[in-house]
Amino acid sequence: MKINNRKYQSIWYSKDDNNIKIINQNKLPFHIETLTLSCTKDVINAISKMKVRGAPLIGCTGAFGVYLSCKKSSKTENIEKDCEDIVAARPTAVNLKWAVRKVKEKIFSFPSEKRESEALKEALLIMEEDIHNCKLIGVHGSEVIKQMHRNNNSVINILTHCNAGWLATVDWGTATSPIYHAKRAGIDIHVWVDETRPRFQGAQLTSFELNNENVENTIISDNTGGYLMFKNRVDMCITGADRIMSNGDVFNKIGTYEKALVAQANNIPFYVAAPVSTIDFSESISEQIVIEERSENEMKIFSYTHNGKYHEFDIYPKNSKCLNIAFDITPSKLITGLICEYGIFECNREGIEKIRRELSK
Amino acid sequence: MKINNRKYQSIWYSKDDNNIKIINQNKLPFHIETLTLSCTKDVINAISKMKVRGAPLIGCTGAFGVYLSCKKSSKTENIEKDCEDIVAARPTAVNLKWAVRKVKEKIFSFPSEKRESEALKEALLIMEEDIHNCKLIGVHGSEVIKQMHRNNNSVINILTHCNAGWLATVDWGTATSPIYHAKRAGIDIHVWVDETRPRFQGAQLTSFELNNENVENTIISDNTGGYLMFKNRVDMCITGADRIMSNGDVFNKIGTYEKALVAQANNIPFYVAAPVSTIDFSESISEQIVIEERSENEMKIFSYTHNGKYHEFDIYPKNSKCLNIAFDITPSKLITGLICEYGIFECNREGIEKIRRELSK
Repeated sequence: MKINNRKYQSIWYSKDDNNIKIINQNKLPFHIETLTLSCTKDVINAISKMKVRGAPLIGCTGAFGVYLSCKKSSKTENIEKDCEDIVAARPTAVNLKWAVRKVKEKIFSFPSEKRESEALKEALLIMEEDIHNCKLIGVHGSEVIKQMHRNNNSVINILTHCNAGWLATVDWGTATSPIYHAKRAGIDIHVWVDETRPRFQGAQLTSFELNNENVENTIISDNTGGYLMFKNRVDMCITGADRIMSNGDVFNKIGTYEKALVAQANNIPFYVAAPVSTIDFSESISEQIVIEERSENEMKIFSYTHNGKYHEFDIYPKNSKCLNIAFDITPSKLITGLICEYGIFECNREGIEKIRRELSK
Repeated sequence: MKINNRKYQSIWYSKDDNNIKIINQNKLPFHIETLTLSCTKDVINAISKMKVRGAPLIGCTGAFGVYLSCKKSSKTENIEKDCEDIVAARPTAVNLKWAVRKVKEKIFSFPSEKRESEALKEALLIMEEDIHNCKLIGVHGSEVIKQMHRNNNSVINILTHCNAGWLATVDWGTATSPIYHAKRAGIDIHVWVDETRPRFQGAQLTSFELNNENVENTIISDNTGGYLMFKNRVDMCITGADRIMSNGDVFNKIGTYEKALVAQANNIPFYVAAPVSTIDFSESISEQIVIEERSENEMKIFSYTHNGKYHEFDIYPKNSKCLNIAFDITPSKLITGLICEYGIFECNREGIEKIRRELSK
């Protein structure tokens, strides 16, 4: 998608230096900075410091991480160790584990001298598939918006939480892809963007990318979505997902659960958009999944750069404690549908089982 | 209550200069600054710029505003005009209108030379009554906490939103008064403090005042309360109110509605604590009440002072729109009980009617 009318992906492979390039998302929306990842350490740093974030993009970055590991040494034990470290960089999203394993399993069937090139091939495939899948999510999801538009023939107001945009994937996005597709089909859309504390991904990434694609949007505090739903100012909600369980429970950015509950109480459809790689097909139950707690500094310290000088300041009282939980669990029963590359499914055990069967075809 | 072990009220009358003193709440928690209000303009500025905030405190400040108006000129038309301007400073809270009218009605039965002293007397009475009422709210509300403690004999986890603490009243607070009273009765309490975007009143005022009273507390993003309730880490919620309708609907800081809905979905009691002056006994319906929209700068601009120099910076993309709604409506059916100076009542038409009868006794 576009930034300042120039086409970008959030991650790409550079033939010039055989390294991986990313947009440093910590610098958005104020600076468009491209970073080079040239080793596994760079990859882990980019993921844990959230220079890349969003479950699909983390997965893709992890896949390239295996390639960079092979580039250093294609010995099995080196790769195994690196893969473990990459997966540990963020524990909740399932795509990371999925992508790293996919590349690893592929290359271990090759002799070590082939592994680097095969890893690159596989990572590029994951990248291309992500673009393709997100596009399909847009095709399927935009049908819901079009149907809604046929019913009320006015601007469709969509609420989204955090950033499940193209910056959270390679291109198109998950929650935003139906929006971009419907918009291109000529439907008037307005997006309510939850600012998404503590890291402001809604305000700083979603609003930014919607602006760049000329999609009307308004940032609201995370406290406001409920009131707008109560006042009939939201037609539907779409969010992404970091992990979808076999029973349809969804792990996503903290706050998603509240929005889903309010949507249900006000009869507003609540969709989750995610590629199938987000599904945890194991029989794990939600209680077993590690929900990441991040540093309290993300909440209580603000920083900014003025005249080239970096400043940091506290916004909480010095002696106050705080708790920074990154994800919550939205129970299956609150979700209207799961939009994935195969179509729209019920987000429950039956729906997930149908997707599993599609996958094994 | 205390700041740095020194006893304060949020507002007081100074005999030295016959003016009104407040703590500038915009400077908390980092600076304890006392301001002098010496004319109606100062009062309006303090209310609209939220140097004082919280429905009961706004009411009390408005009452002193009428006194300051009389001090300038005790002509009826001057007072009438000033009263109108004071009430317009913030439209949603009912206490402001109530307090200003109370003083005005009182003094208009006196000849003009008596009005200044009578206005002061009446405003001081409102101030003393607020302290007394908040204390009673604490006495009644702490019984709920004590009962809960008898049932489970462990730390009681209470979630609160925004600041309905002593800084939102003259002393004791509304939502916090039961907490302070239960704490003094020896019950272990831990408070989950919603940081409360966009102005951070939870983080910057509630956590600050709880710290100063040695009440254990943890600041959370506004997205987190739902997950904590879902995970059984909250025993009860208590918030304040800016206006309570005859049918029991509650206007309070934006975000309150979501918390009440999540509390109900998870069988967690949700109490509203407010003095009776917060009740709008008219037959107005919720749809008729003006819900204040505040400047978008409160959301998108951050400021701080470093080495005596004031800095401002944007946190949203330059061309992004945002919407800053100050209050929402929590429907009566989501509220477990209304804690006021007369006791604990059902927060519905019957309960409000009972309170009205108490009031007219």
